[in-house]
Amino acid sequence: MSLDGFIAGPNQTLEEPLGAGGEQLHEWAFAAQAWREAHGMEGGETNVDNEVVEEGLAGVGATVMGRRMFSGGEGPWEDDPNADAWWGEDPPFHHPVFVLTHHPREPVQKEGGTTFTFVTDGIESALEQARAAAGDGDVAVAGGADVVQQYLEAGLIDEMQLHVVPLLLGDGVRLFDGALPGAPRTLECTRVIESPTGVTHLTYRAAS
Amino acid sequence: MSLDGFIAGPNQTLEEPLGAGGEQLHEWAFAAQAWREAHGMEGGETNVDNEVVEEGLAGVGATVMGRRMFSGGEGPWEDDPNADAWWGEDPPFHHPVFVLTHHPREPVQKEGGTTFTFVTDGIESALEQARAAAGDGDVAVAGGADVVQQYLEAGLIDEMQLHVVPLLLGDGVRLFDGALPGAPRTLECTRVIESPTGVTHLTYRAAS
Repeated sequence: MSLDGFIAGPNQTLEEPLGAGGEQLHEWAFAAQAWREAHGMEGGETNVDNEVVEEGLAGVGATVMGRRMFSGGEGPWEDDPNADAWWGEDPPFHHPVFVLTHHPREPVQKEGGTTFTFVTDGIESALEQARAAAGDGDVAVAGGADVVQQYLEAGLIDEMQLHVVPLLLGDGVRLFDGALPGAPRTLECTRVIESPTGVTHLTYRAAS
Repeated sequence: MSLDGFIAGPNQTLEEPLGAGGEQLHEWAFAAQAWREAHGMEGGETNVDNEVVEEGLAGVGATVMGRRMFSGGEGPWEDDPNADAWWGEDPPFHHPVFVLTHHPREPVQKEGGTTFTFVTDGIESALEQARAAAGDGDVAVAGGADVVQQYLEAGLIDEMQLHVVPLLLGDGVRLFDGALPGAPRTLECTRVIESPTGVTHLTYRAAS
């Protein structure tokens, strides 16, 4: 997120899904060798940012995301122009992905091990299915912010990774917005990684 | 600031000037030996948090603050019950302090080297006076958030220290609120200090 707490810029569109200026929040990851490899590209940085990306990819056995993160759209699937193509034919997850939606749909299998399963009965069901699918791996709650906030509110986040990027966006989508009454008030900082790119990778656990 | 970006809790009152839960944001400093010494107390922690406090105290030659941070009040001085007593007879600054206000007032000299000068002609004048008073030292913009934001907007902040405390406050006063159109968009992270108390001390400079 940016220094001022945004995980996407303002004016998110299908052409600019991370909003104005939002891509800058991910440049450290886009440049990393491990990220490029997961997206079928060669080369890339092998710095500490790359280790953070690698670790995330290696440890995660399943991902949960919101509908908007899946397709950029909302509403019935037949009206959604990106219902299939948004993440490409070989998506970067390479594991089962559970998509929170109000609109039922059959699972979709892509190349490279990524399957999309559509969950209409809520965040706890999605987490349960993702846990079963992840085996010994972690379940990543990928976003968007509203989905992360719902899991925080429900007390279902064990660990949070914040990647603090030295930018002031000034506007956009906040990761922490609103009171989050059910979220843990106090966390434990378990790791701080300083990167030469200026990004600080912070890991927090819910205090026990 | 808290993980969710607040530098004070909600419902700031004269009895609870940092708002509900806001004192927790400063516990790392309150516990430090250097902070206690500046406030005329003995003992305290001598950890890395203490080094951060020490460094700040040693390097700063003058401080700028807003009227509300000075007295907790607003409006004419004769109506302000804390116009004199808020920071005590021996305030912790031990150097010249410049208070931004709309209400003219003669300077006040306290014990231990702290003088309060009241500046009614704007943030640039306050900074200029503070620079002259600071000599070789730095000028600290102490707060509140609105004063920091005004200096950011004017492009007058060279360096920012953020002390990220592992708390979710959920509500309160944000350090970065609003678009801040004149503020630098990109900063340079110049230092990351991890503390055993879970606080991360981040230093940023405006990118050159």
